[in-house]
Amino acid sequence: MQEFTKFPTKTGRRSLSRSISQSSTDSYSSAASYTDSSDDEVSPREKQQTNSKGSSNFCVKNIKQAEFGRREIEIAEQDMSALISLRKRAQGEKPLAGAKIVGCTHITAQTAVLIETLCALGAQCRWSACNIYSTQNEVAAALAEAGVAVFAWKGESEDDFWWCIDRCVNMDGWQANMILDDGGDLTHWVYKKYPNVFKKIRGIVEESVTGVHRLYQLSKAGKLCVPAMNVNDSVTKQKFDNLYCCRESILDGLKRTTDVMFGGKQVVVCGYGEVGKGCCAALKALGAIVYITEIDPICALQACMDGFRVVKLNEVIRQVDVVITCTGNKNVVTREHLDRMKNSCIVCNMGHSNTEIDVTSLRTPELTWERVRSQVDHVIWPDGKRVVLLAEGRLLNLSCSTVPTFVLSITATTQALALIELYNAPDGRYKQDVYLLPKKMDEYVASLHLPSFDAHLTELTDDQAKYLGLNKNGPFKPNYYRY
Amino acid sequence: MQEFTKFPTKTGRRSLSRSISQSSTDSYSSAASYTDSSDDEVSPREKQQTNSKGSSNFCVKNIKQAEFGRREIEIAEQDMSALISLRKRAQGEKPLAGAKIVGCTHITAQTAVLIETLCALGAQCRWSACNIYSTQNEVAAALAEAGVAVFAWKGESEDDFWWCIDRCVNMDGWQANMILDDGGDLTHWVYKKYPNVFKKIRGIVEESVTGVHRLYQLSKAGKLCVPAMNVNDSVTKQKFDNLYCCRESILDGLKRTTDVMFGGKQVVVCGYGEVGKGCCAALKALGAIVYITEIDPICALQACMDGFRVVKLNEVIRQVDVVITCTGNKNVVTREHLDRMKNSCIVCNMGHSNTEIDVTSLRTPELTWERVRSQVDHVIWPDGKRVVLLAEGRLLNLSCSTVPTFVLSITATTQALALIELYNAPDGRYKQDVYLLPKKMDEYVASLHLPSFDAHLTELTDDQAKYLGLNKNGPFKPNYYRY
Amino acid sequence: MQEFTKFPTKTGRRSLSRSISQSSTDSYSSAASYTDSSDDEVSPREKQQTNSKGSSNFCVKNIKQAEFGRREIEIAEQDMSALISLRKRAQGEKPLAGAKIVGCTHITAQTAVLIETLCALGAQCRWSACNIYSTQNEVAAALAEAGVAVFAWKGESEDDFWWCIDRCVNMDGWQANMILDDGGDLTHWVYKKYPNVFKKIRGIVEESVTGVHRLYQLSKAGKLCVPAMNVNDSVTKQKFDNLYCCRESILDGLKRTTDVMFGGKQVVVCGYGEVGKGCCAALKALGAIVYITEIDPICALQACMDGFRVVKLNEVIRQVDVVITCTGNKNVVTREHLDRMKNSCIVCNMGHSNTEIDVTSLRTPELTWERVRSQVDHVIWPDGKRVVLLAEGRLLNLSCSTVPTFVLSITATTQALALIELYNAPDGRYKQDVYLLPKKMDEYVASLHLPSFDAHLTELTDDQAKYLGLNKNGPFKPNYYRY
Amino acid sequence: MQEFTKFPTKTGRRSLSRSISQSSTDSYSSAASYTDSSDDEVSPREKQQTNSKGSSNFCVKNIKQAEFGRREIEIAEQDMSALISLRKRAQGEKPLAGAKIVGCTHITAQTAVLIETLCALGAQCRWSACNIYSTQNEVAAALAEAGVAVFAWKGESEDDFWWCIDRCVNMDGWQANMILDDGGDLTHWVYKKYPNVFKKIRGIVEESVTGVHRLYQLSKAGKLCVPAMNVNDSVTKQKFDNLYCCRESILDGLKRTTDVMFGGKQVVVCGYGEVGKGCCAALKALGAIVYITEIDPICALQACMDGFRVVKLNEVIRQVDVVITCTGNKNVVTREHLDRMKNSCIVCNMGHSNTEIDVTSLRTPELTWERVRSQVDHVIWPDGKRVVLLAEGRLLNLSCSTVPTFVLSITATTQALALIELYNAPDGRYKQDVYLLPKKMDEYVASLHLPSFDAHLTELTDDQAKYLGLNKNGPFKPNYYRY
Repeated sequence: MQEFTKFPTKTGRRSLSRSISQSSTDSYSSAASYTDSSDDEVSPREKQQTNSKGSSNFCVKNIKQAEFGRREIEIAEQDMSALISLRKRAQGEKPLAGAKIVGCTHITAQTAVLIETLCALGAQCRWSACNIYSTQNEVAAALAEAGVAVFAWKGESEDDFWWCIDRCVNMDGWQANMILDDGGDLTHWVYKKYPNVFKKIRGIVEESVTGVHRLYQLSKAGKLCVPAMNVNDSVTKQKFDNLYCCRESILDGLKRTTDVMFGGKQVVVCGYGEVGKGCCAALKALGAIVYITEIDPICALQACMDGFRVVKLNEVIRQVDVVITCTGNKNVVTREHLDRMKNSCIVCNMGHSNTEIDVTSLRTPELTWERVRSQVDHVIWPDGKRVVLLAEGRLLNLSCSTVPTFVLSITATTQALALIELYNAPDGRYKQDVYLLPKKMDEYVASLHLPSFDAHLTELTDDQAKYLGLNKNGPFKPNYYRY
Repeated sequence: MQEFTKFPTKTGRRSLSRSISQSSTDSYSSAASYTDSSDDEVSPREKQQTNSKGSSNFCVKNIKQAEFGRREIEIAEQDMSALISLRKRAQGEKPLAGAKIVGCTHITAQTAVLIETLCALGAQCRWSACNIYSTQNEVAAALAEAGVAVFAWKGESEDDFWWCIDRCVNMDGWQANMILDDGGDLTHWVYKKYPNVFKKIRGIVEESVTGVHRLYQLSKAGKLCVPAMNVNDSVTKQKFDNLYCCRESILDGLKRTTDVMFGGKQVVVCGYGEVGKGCCAALKALGAIVYITEIDPICALQACMDGFRVVKLNEVIRQVDVVITCTGNKNVVTREHLDRMKNSCIVCNMGHSNTEIDVTSLRTPELTWERVRSQVDHVIWPDGKRVVLLAEGRLLNLSCSTVPTFVLSITATTQALALIELYNAPDGRYKQDVYLLPKKMDEYVASLHLPSFDAHLTELTDDQAKYLGLNKNGPFKPNYYRY
Repeated sequence: MQEFTKFPTKTGRRSLSRSISQSSTDSYSSAASYTDSSDDEVSPREKQQTNSKGSSNFCVKNIKQAEFGRREIEIAEQDMSALISLRKRAQGEKPLAGAKIVGCTHITAQTAVLIETLCALGAQCRWSACNIYSTQNEVAAALAEAGVAVFAWKGESEDDFWWCIDRCVNMDGWQANMILDDGGDLTHWVYKKYPNVFKKIRGIVEESVTGVHRLYQLSKAGKLCVPAMNVNDSVTKQKFDNLYCCRESILDGLKRTTDVMFGGKQVVVCGYGEVGKGCCAALKALGAIVYITEIDPICALQACMDGFRVVKLNEVIRQVDVVITCTGNKNVVTREHLDRMKNSCIVCNMGHSNTEIDVTSLRTPELTWERVRSQVDHVIWPDGKRVVLLAEGRLLNLSCSTVPTFVLSITATTQALALIELYNAPDGRYKQDVYLLPKKMDEYVASLHLPSFDAHLTELTDDQAKYLGLNKNGPFKPNYYRY
Repeated sequence: MQEFTKFPTKTGRRSLSRSISQSSTDSYSSAASYTDSSDDEVSPREKQQTNSKGSSNFCVKNIKQAEFGRREIEIAEQDMSALISLRKRAQGEKPLAGAKIVGCTHITAQTAVLIETLCALGAQCRWSACNIYSTQNEVAAALAEAGVAVFAWKGESEDDFWWCIDRCVNMDGWQANMILDDGGDLTHWVYKKYPNVFKKIRGIVEESVTGVHRLYQLSKAGKLCVPAMNVNDSVTKQKFDNLYCCRESILDGLKRTTDVMFGGKQVVVCGYGEVGKGCCAALKALGAIVYITEIDPICALQACMDGFRVVKLNEVIRQVDVVITCTGNKNVVTREHLDRMKNSCIVCNMGHSNTEIDVTSLRTPELTWERVRSQVDHVIWPDGKRVVLLAEGRLLNLSCSTVPTFVLSITATTQALALIELYNAPDGRYKQDVYLLPKKMDEYVASLHLPSFDAHLTELTDDQAKYLGLNKNGPFKPNYYRY
């Protein structure tokens, strides 16, 4: 966990630093399918490109791919009706009129829908990518064609990465008053290079675990000079990114990589937090026999009541067919465990970083690694035993499955509302601190997504609202409510 | 919701006032089976009784029933190994040595195990019943025989009720320094009659929703003069009392009253909080088709993701076979809804009070009530349509099912730890305010119950604890963690 | 398994001989609740009773209870809409006109609906009880009042039992031409005493496992002299009596007897046939951890794929909280197993007879039996260990739970259709053999029950029927189809 | 449904004719990943190839790929331990010594394990492919290298297809005495060209629905001149190919093609047979709301009891997000239905052929087709509505997901046992008819797969076997048992 004052230097690390936020990065694995990698090799920085309106206020791989990208954006819009609905509801009043937003996120069809929503609500936007690999070039082209100042392409170098961010922030005659960040690199850059910009900034909206962590550290150190909104920890986002999304992606990730049959398999899931709960529910439902390891007695008791045996990893390691880590911890699966696994055991990680499985311990001369498919390695012991390691211990659902647009819609809507809230808040409501999204806005995000399910809310009568001591429009629950 | 300054006068109301806390009251329905109601009619207050050691420092129905009660206590102990384990772990140091606890709870085999645990840890106890109907006479006798000063019997009058409480508090040469209350009546009485007692009181432990509500009101009004511990809202208790317990008791309550087949039934559950989630999970698992009504968009979105259609009650009221309320609200099911239900529709309440179904609206001349079983009424419309109303709209699981001893063990252990915490806390740790049980203690309660499931916790290594920034012994989660 | 030529003599045995057919006997446990046992002690055989129309062609406990019984029948009719619908559809043509049916079944509100349906379709009926304990006296009175020649009461002696059957068969000027039997005692009596009656009999409809077994033995021995219909093995009845019904009754039976919490309990289920599948599905859904024992590798493989570990009983006997037998086998749970169970382990039987648990082996001097509730014994080992034995090893759902009327409706409708089929079949369609209900009729029984669920069947177009080579009205599946 | 006397001529049709048997064809979709399509274009028939032992008794794409293919076979062996175990158990006695098997199946790593097992048991084998696209060239090379006479490659022409079959059958000095067929083309060819060969043939083992259908027609027409074993309908194969496999592949197929989120989706499944039951169970478990259409009242009643609403397609077509057909019928989803679907509705087929969705009706000028991914078309209505059609209405799991090796192992083991049974049966046991695998062998297949799950069967004691009237080694169930 680094602070802002440490300058991140390794490209490899950076592409991981945001992997922590699942929904934000996972999208790019699906993107891979239609991004042509055999493109010409000229750097976009050296190309002269102009969109159909004559503007060259952008830097993308190939502006000619705009039409294809537009199609992708349109398809994404179909599953992001909450943002479309937000455009409609808020368009008359233009709640972001005057907002100048500098953004740094993955650049995908889904974020394009977000960016264009912000514009529709009155904002001007300049945008760069938060990951050197995740940009969908066609989508970036479509944004550029539509007039957004976007600086991003797939396969940036370390230098390109910071150059793009810089082009967003550093422009004559245009000064940002809002920051939307995913991972904290943009925020870091402004702190480092253009601290004066903060005088005009009304707030930062940050989505990733890493970025939020950095903000809390800044706040603790008394160095946070504007209000910041932590949208990572909103209820709706959390449940979707973790419980509901992992319930589906654990199956998807395992199937796409190994074609394993779930029925009758013995699986141990390390960690029974939201991610673990999602994984276990899905695997149990499809006929797997699931064991849990836990360090927290409350989560362990939940596991018991939900019908899982709570064990130490050593108790079952010889018998299980699949090992899944979701702890946020490190070295949960050690070389000793790996040595004791049975032949063909599958090992993968659904947790928050690539530290959970001690993959490094497998880089020893007596073990042979065999890459059998993309993201699938067989690690072979001298006696012929094979352990099937997925994604080299990195996040399985980041690497080997996709995230439904609907989940990304939750995140994007939350970001949009956080920007509106911070931008329009009366002076003094927010201090130089890190805030959670007000519960009422969290409820609003949820309500915008109910029409997708044709779900109909019940309204309180005046009498009932009085009886419950609630406002009819919410918020409906105390802050500590657990859902 | 009454305050302390209003003196509760109606017996009927009182027996309901604590119904809100499920685990505390439900037990008495099972008790009914072995409490002989054809006992002699002499009031215990007029009897002269002495236990085998010559003490008459108690008032129970019949001291001779002690042996039978002891058996019940012993059976309960088998499912309350957490308390037994607490006795063993803490007995050497006697953490309650010097504590003089005055208690007012349901008096059942399970609370007897709690009381005797408190004594084993060094406390002296005087005890009365928080409900005029719920005392298991044989258990009270066994406690009295064992030397506990217990004042309680089944079928107390209003006057008896306060007399018993008074006998606990008001004793020459003995002054309470701790209060364990369930519903707030004991606390109320001390406020009203013996305010000076609070000078010695180190703290109040309160278990019920009602009692906790009163305490928060006192605190808000600046009238709370000692620290109080709200054990109602501890994670472990909440999950067990609501989610896990209701998952089982909805089935039990419906079967015992109506023998209904669940498979294929269409059910609408009003409210998708913890209670609703438990009910829905069980009914869906047994083949019912479940619809949800909700006012809160976040809970509604959860219902969608969990596979339930979210509707307004009117949309499905004509087609459903069962209507279950779990909202905490009032008049959720109105006469208009009842008029539109189909023949044989079952209506019941799993929520927090008997207001959810507007039962009063059914007391009109054109409708005929027919009591077909205990707790089951057929309300008959002029055209012959019958609606099956359970427990007259009171809590179904209070009235028609039992609560497993294991759930009561969670509650009792939480109470014991709260008493130990308050009694031993250094001066100044707790102010004159209402506190939640420290998370570490909540985790300790959970850990004491894991052996029942033969569950084995994993311990953090030093290295891992450091990596996570956690103490190896917990607490393991931030306070806002949602579980 | 006795043959017809052996005369059953022990009352005790008889009341068990039909316990094998769950739906037929289970009903009487619920009946117990409203049958007054403190009735007068005069034998019905010695009473002179007349119904309101002046007929005394019946023998029941008390004709004055008819009104109460009628109410019970009316309530049962509400859940037996298939029979009511059959009355309506077939009433014009009176398909049983001329039929003289002698019946011997449990006499409950549900069978009353069946009997009155048969009458509505044109039949004359004379009826006795197939079990000396299971008659609901009020219902028998209501039938008598309505003109049915019923001879049955609760608590018949052995002699009464056969006297009642005899009164049904042996009547001047009336000779039965159809038999509806449950257990084979009526059939046996006719074989024994009135073999000439078979000359007029067009067929026997038999519902119980025992009775069907006897019929197959007769057929094998060449002694079956009329066609017989085995309605026990029809698909619909089997699925409801076994899979769907046990899925619900295992939970109900365990809760009513022990109030056990299911969540987290370790359970071993012996046998993974339909009954076992039902039990396991329910227990798993409520959070129990379930192990299976099996002798058949195909069922064992199904258990694996459904997510259960398949073990030998010895592997888990020390750790489980509940043992459930559903094998149809004997001595599946032996004294050796019982010796090794842990304290408080619950043992019960959901299988076909009381032989599965070797209860006899527990009748040794060193073990103490303690009856703690109705149907619940604690068997106590010298070291204090208690095993909780339910229903003394007899069928749990027979003894400790009820059967939904809907399940009984399936059985009763099947019986009615079997009678219609045999009575109207052209000569020669059925020989002197045992037949299964034609698939088309099985489908018809199912279709009559769909409206209860508001289920809407799709009809084949002519073109589709031709493509599939099916008749548009069924049957839709080959006989070997497994469902 | 064609007969043997009609000569199939269209290549397109042929590759579909076997699609009916899921497990046999599905495998090739996964094969695609590692078969290099950019190979040289010389026809294998024109190449001169020799394996390392000097033999050229084969015809494959490229013998040099043998090493890669061997690796694939070895990996497959890990999940086909039943066959390996069969090799070990039966190797001493060589039950296929003298057998000369001519085979025509998909040629994949899994069938290679089967073929090499047959060789290990004593057989000589000659093999061709039953599908022009499904051969894994590397695997064919490995088989050729190992000495098997294999004639097959990916991308055969119609003429190649029959040439390969001919090369297997028509060889001087070698005459087949067993046939293993998948689809009936080999059998057809022998009937057509070499009818004399049947004089030596001891039996045919056929796996596909189509092939079995042809055999039954031959039998009916009195033209079947050797015994044939229908392994398609064995219990174990059916459950795995349909219920268990579809439970997993419906999720896999939908995810891989559309990345759809299952939670909260409304889905209608047409048909509640084994395939439908599998699809519904999985979708329900992951939070979808599932509706069923059915023509058969028994299956409809099962759907009700399993918690699904049974509707006509028209009732829900406007509201559902996904439509899945599993009926075996034709035109279940018509243009009229498609016209009424909402925007973005996904339509796919899990049934037995590509007739269930009337895809042809969508080939009209006013509709635009857009191929958005492999196997995914958007069909666009003039108003912009898009329907997402998967695999052009062909089998989803054939086209868009893979089949676990474990499922293929069940099929292959069944085939091997059927060959052993027919080859070793005493004269007269099997006539010129189509037989199901004896139940005991079906049980044996299951038992060979139990060790994968570490499942332990219980053995009957002598006493129990006698009580049940069973042989201790099975068969354990009557033929009509439904599982």
